Amino acid sequence: MALCSMRKARGCWRFIRALHTGPEAVPAPQKDAVKRVFSGIQPTGIPHLGNYLGAIESWVRLQDKHSSVLYSIVDLHSITAAQDPAVLRQSILDMTAALLACGINPEKSILFQQSQVSEHTQLSWILTCMVRLPRLQHLHQWKAKTAKQKHDGTVGLLTYPVLQAADVLLYKSTHVPVGEDQVQHMELVQDLARGFNRKYGEFFPVPKSILTSMKKVKSLRDPSAKMSKSDPDKLATVGLTDSPEQIVQKFRKAVTDFTSEVTYDPASRGGVSNMVAIHAAVTGLPVEEVVRRSAGIDTARYKLLVADAVIEKLAPIRSEIEKLKMDKGHLQKVLQAGSVKAKELAYPVCQEVKELVGFR
Amino acid sequence: MALCSMRKARGCWRFIRALHTGPEAVPAPQKDAVKRVFSGIQPTGIPHLGNYLGAIESWVRLQDKHSSVLYSIVDLHSITAAQDPAVLRQSILDMTAALLACGINPEKSILFQQSQVSEHTQLSWILTCMVRLPRLQHLHQWKAKTAKQKHDGTVGLLTYPVLQAADVLLYKSTHVPVGEDQVQHMELVQDLARGFNRKYGEFFPVPKSILTSMKKVKSLRDPSAKMSKSDPDKLATVGLTDSPEQIVQKFRKAVTDFTSEVTYDPASRGGVSNMVAIHAAVTGLPVEEVVRRSAGIDTARYKLLVADAVIEKLAPIRSEIEKLKMDKGHLQKVLQAGSVKAKELAYPVCQEVKELVGFR
Repeated sequence: MALCSMRKARGCWRFIRALHTGPEAVPAPQKDAVKRVFSGIQPTGIPHLGNYLGAIESWVRLQDKHSSVLYSIVDLHSITAAQDPAVLRQSILDMTAALLACGINPEKSILFQQSQVSEHTQLSWILTCMVRLPRLQHLHQWKAKTAKQKHDGTVGLLTYPVLQAADVLLYKSTHVPVGEDQVQHMELVQDLARGFNRKYGEFFPVPKSILTSMKKVKSLRDPSAKMSKSDPDKLATVGLTDSPEQIVQKFRKAVTDFTSEVTYDPASRGGVSNMVAIHAAVTGLPVEEVVRRSAGIDTARYKLLVADAVIEKLAPIRSEIEKLKMDKGHLQKVLQAGSVKAKELAYPVCQEVKELVGFR
Repeated sequence: MALCSMRKARGCWRFIRALHTGPEAVPAPQKDAVKRVFSGIQPTGIPHLGNYLGAIESWVRLQDKHSSVLYSIVDLHSITAAQDPAVLRQSILDMTAALLACGINPEKSILFQQSQVSEHTQLSWILTCMVRLPRLQHLHQWKAKTAKQKHDGTVGLLTYPVLQAADVLLYKSTHVPVGEDQVQHMELVQDLARGFNRKYGEFFPVPKSILTSMKKVKSLRDPSAKMSKSDPDKLATVGLTDSPEQIVQKFRKAVTDFTSEVTYDPASRGGVSNMVAIHAAVTGLPVEEVVRRSAGIDTARYKLLVADAVIEKLAPIRSEIEKLKMDKGHLQKVLQAGSVKAKELAYPVCQEVKELVGFR
């Protein structure tokens, strides 16, 4: 399942780079019917392989499985870190192109830009008046952030989990695909839903996490770290629009170890196991099968084999992204149409909330 | 000049209870032309005498003097403290009725309800991502609040000065009537305007305070405290719709001292001086003249004389409020019409901000 979370480098929503270990990643059985799924992704531009395998592929599966699914490009979250306006503007369109190219279908799911739906910040303010400061200060990610950059975090970085809660609750979402590092934030969403219901009467469903057994795609240069767009080592991360030559070069230089055999053992052989996991994910084969088929191949050759599989998997996506990027107007129209649909759902909920609070 | 500020009891915008000492309270000369005046008031229901003399009267003068004046009933601020929804709903209408009865003219100034203009929270979020936590934590009013109610303040109580900044900047306001206890908050507004302009290019005027020499109307029961709606002693505060009997009773029981002479000496004779100040304000006479005319009258009789002057001043306001309160539909229409006008100003500013930030 797909999910969004705090981006390590910028402190906001990001993908959990994930790989499904089995042939089919089935969410933990949910007792309650999935009525509405919501997830958000930061406009970081063209996603990388980790984003795609970890989240976007799962988003595509979710839209096929459930009748009401919303995916938001959460640009309001992106400004909790410094942004160049021109870059941000382009990144919103690039992310849109990438999501469409990866198979997000605006006929099946509502794909929209968060800042175009004004109800997000309205509900966020109301929820901000229902949470106490220590609750936000005790969130792991804020603590990790402020430990690193003493006094450097903006108030947005402290309060964005409340905006996340508003993102989810605004659509009365019942299910949110999340990663392990988002468990605390989902607890906040749930507590705010319960707190609101306690005060104003039953209104919000208490949304449930769709937790899946995932593995994160690792950096090609440091298998102990997650693949990340902000990695200073440009060889560490494979972008969805990388050329075949770039992909081959990156896999060729991928850090493995001095054992030439291909095995899957993430704890002791992180580099090779990352290759195997990526290989399994892009071919759709189980890890065991991938390992079996690679018997007798040394890791140097195996890396090129994985590179080829990645190139094959990404080729249609890459060409579709390039095509979509040519038509800025189309991308804008897709976002606008999605935002209109999202607003149609958000507006009545926000109006009801205002009535309950006493503004109307 | 009128002004709004943090309400002592609830931690949000409130009136500064003020009395103009001279026959005409002239703001400190402003070098820059007043292009747009903005002020906000919390929907606390029917205002009291201190609200009226300190702020609302000045608001009426401001609307006559300047061409573009906005007054907002800042309901979003009111929820930084616990509110009963039914009471809040009524209080918004009561405040509207009171402002109209006091002379706020929707033809001259834009009177609107903050929560009806969604751009306030949108701009507030953007500004929230431009301010660092210590800046808000060091504001006097947050410190005073958290010292009193340890861990009891909501995050809204911490961040509402940023929403105040958005309230002001959203209309590219040039001038804001403020009281002394709002100086720090105005500095934040100014810093946020400058910070935004530095980052995105000259956009917001840096708004100026309209500071006036004011005196606060004191509690009738404790001249060391300001008159306040939340005073537990019901005799301390005169409401604009109090009956003549109630007003006489409250002034009769007003705390003075054992000297029977009427003099004006706020430092040593707070109670009597408060009477004199109120007397001067409701009659429009200078303090000296009021004192001169009261020669030979003992304080017990003087209190009744002041009560009569207050009754006379408030009589038309009271009856107008009662009349307006009968027509809920009219009050709602006034607010809606004002909110439409406010939105007409706010929308293009917010769109431009979004373009500058990179959302469009």
